[in-house]
Amino acid sequence: MPPRRVIGIDAGGTKLLGGVVDESLAVHHRVHRLWRGADRSETIDIFVAAVEEIRAAAPDVDAVGFGIPALVDARGAVVWSNHLPIDGIPFAQVMSERLGLPVVIDNDSNAAIVAEHRHGAARGYDDALLLALGTGIGGGLVIGGRLYRGARGFAGELGHIPLDIHGEDCPGDCPGRGCFETLVSGRAIGVAAERAGREQPESTFGRLLAGHGEIRGGLVAELAHDGDGQARAVLAEVGARLGIGIAGLVNALDPGVVVIGGGAVGAGDLLLDPARAMLAERALPPGAQPPPVLPARFGGESGMLGAALLALDGAP
Amino acid sequence: MPPRRVIGIDAGGTKLLGGVVDESLAVHHRVHRLWRGADRSETIDIFVAAVEEIRAAAPDVDAVGFGIPALVDARGAVVWSNHLPIDGIPFAQVMSERLGLPVVIDNDSNAAIVAEHRHGAARGYDDALLLALGTGIGGGLVIGGRLYRGARGFAGELGHIPLDIHGEDCPGDCPGRGCFETLVSGRAIGVAAERAGREQPESTFGRLLAGHGEIRGGLVAELAHDGDGQARAVLAEVGARLGIGIAGLVNALDPGVVVIGGGAVGAGDLLLDPARAMLAERALPPGAQPPPVLPARFGGESGMLGAALLALDGAP
Repeated sequence: MPPRRVIGIDAGGTKLLGGVVDESLAVHHRVHRLWRGADRSETIDIFVAAVEEIRAAAPDVDAVGFGIPALVDARGAVVWSNHLPIDGIPFAQVMSERLGLPVVIDNDSNAAIVAEHRHGAARGYDDALLLALGTGIGGGLVIGGRLYRGARGFAGELGHIPLDIHGEDCPGDCPGRGCFETLVSGRAIGVAAERAGREQPESTFGRLLAGHGEIRGGLVAELAHDGDGQARAVLAEVGARLGIGIAGLVNALDPGVVVIGGGAVGAGDLLLDPARAMLAERALPPGAQPPPVLPARFGGESGMLGAALLALDGAP
Repeated sequence: MPPRRVIGIDAGGTKLLGGVVDESLAVHHRVHRLWRGADRSETIDIFVAAVEEIRAAAPDVDAVGFGIPALVDARGAVVWSNHLPIDGIPFAQVMSERLGLPVVIDNDSNAAIVAEHRHGAARGYDDALLLALGTGIGGGLVIGGRLYRGARGFAGELGHIPLDIHGEDCPGDCPGRGCFETLVSGRAIGVAAERAGREQPESTFGRLLAGHGEIRGGLVAELAHDGDGQARAVLAEVGARLGIGIAGLVNALDPGVVVIGGGAVGAGDLLLDPARAMLAERALPPGAQPPPVLPARFGGESGMLGAALLALDGAP
């Protein structure tokens, strides 16, 4: 019997990544899409077209797993998304009708921690948390060896813990202020770089800002890897804030490991070392070794792999 | 056979409460002690004297359960306490030697949520969190129907999540800044009242401040219950901050219920209603009914009862 194969789709706040995944976690036929401000119906069409493109290359797939940046209920309906215009859509039902395949849906960061817990950086830990740093911060929790969903299925929105009670409104339609993700995310790295650019118009970021008007987190990471001092300082600043947020989560939950995923993990230790230093300084008990802060083994693909694993769990 | 009886001791940051507790949760022979700045050896002596006083009245007890404001390890040693000078003491061993009785030790708020989950406000909820508002904020978590201890046994320090990244140093030797408990606790209520008194010297708190130099949280609650507008405004301000902190915990953990215990629960709905309103405004998903915020059924006695329950669990 050939290994079973499913499609895994990871939908972030900015883009979609999909592919065929088999039981050995090999990935084939990757596709990428950008939302580019798609409205409600266009967004659903992009999901469908991405799956159909993969399926054309791999017609033998058994099921599709979707990790989406949203709170989803037990029937696979979208209760709320801060990043995509899909609130209220019975997503699992719509997709299984449009695709004619079994569909599994979960929060994107829940999917990511499933992959990291079973096969990646959190393997062997009964208690783990994942922060996916992308457009915002997604979160996932493994507690007592299992994905933790909470009383209503909404647990793990770790990016929406307020870190700055006097902070600004959280973007999108999160009603919070000063949320963790406003201070630490791919977008927050860009915002910090733009502020540095405004303060020093003759600097790297000052010139970039004059030229393009926007600086993205990925570019900051690239410049930092190339040795740019200003870019490294920006990552150190955001990394320190990341460490403060992790310290609070460690105090509350005492995980055995903290896994950092999402696109911003491309910044690597230039972001994570300042976070580790701040965690060691701020976490309880003082002087003790805090839990390790590890990059996601599967980098930006944890969500896609985890969505596929959930589909393999559910597929006949 | 007569019902089994044990001694439950709840040690807070300011005082100790103890009593004999039987299997029906009836309490007899209560004792109270204040720490009044006791040093390391005096603190241990106070614990021993409190137990001996109770035991003189009830020589038939089977065991002693201690809930203490500290991180404790699996062998009952104190790893760290922000409130009492007992760091590093092998507490369970010292107490069982001094008392000649079986001893169980746990974090005070872990003990409190055990009582509230089995018999109180969190009964029937698989996922619950407790905030004990006293000198600081203690926290306890029930996840999947069980007390959650985390990877090292240190979970539940919910008072040490940073809510104000630009805030002041957390008192005691917590290395955090702007921790939840610096903004919301019995002490924080007193601090808010003193600030109100400085701003308005002719007000209730202004006159109290001129007379006594210190305003305690319990007095603010009393004045608020008597209808004092300034005291009610202080409770509303601290209650709103409480709601912001709860919103973050609800977003992260999606508990079925939030229980508020500790001495500050004496402020009742004057504190909890502003917290509920802020929680409804700030929690995810917007517009949904957040989990209920309930006062501890056992008020300031949850910790003592829970310590006793843990001792009954462990006693022969």
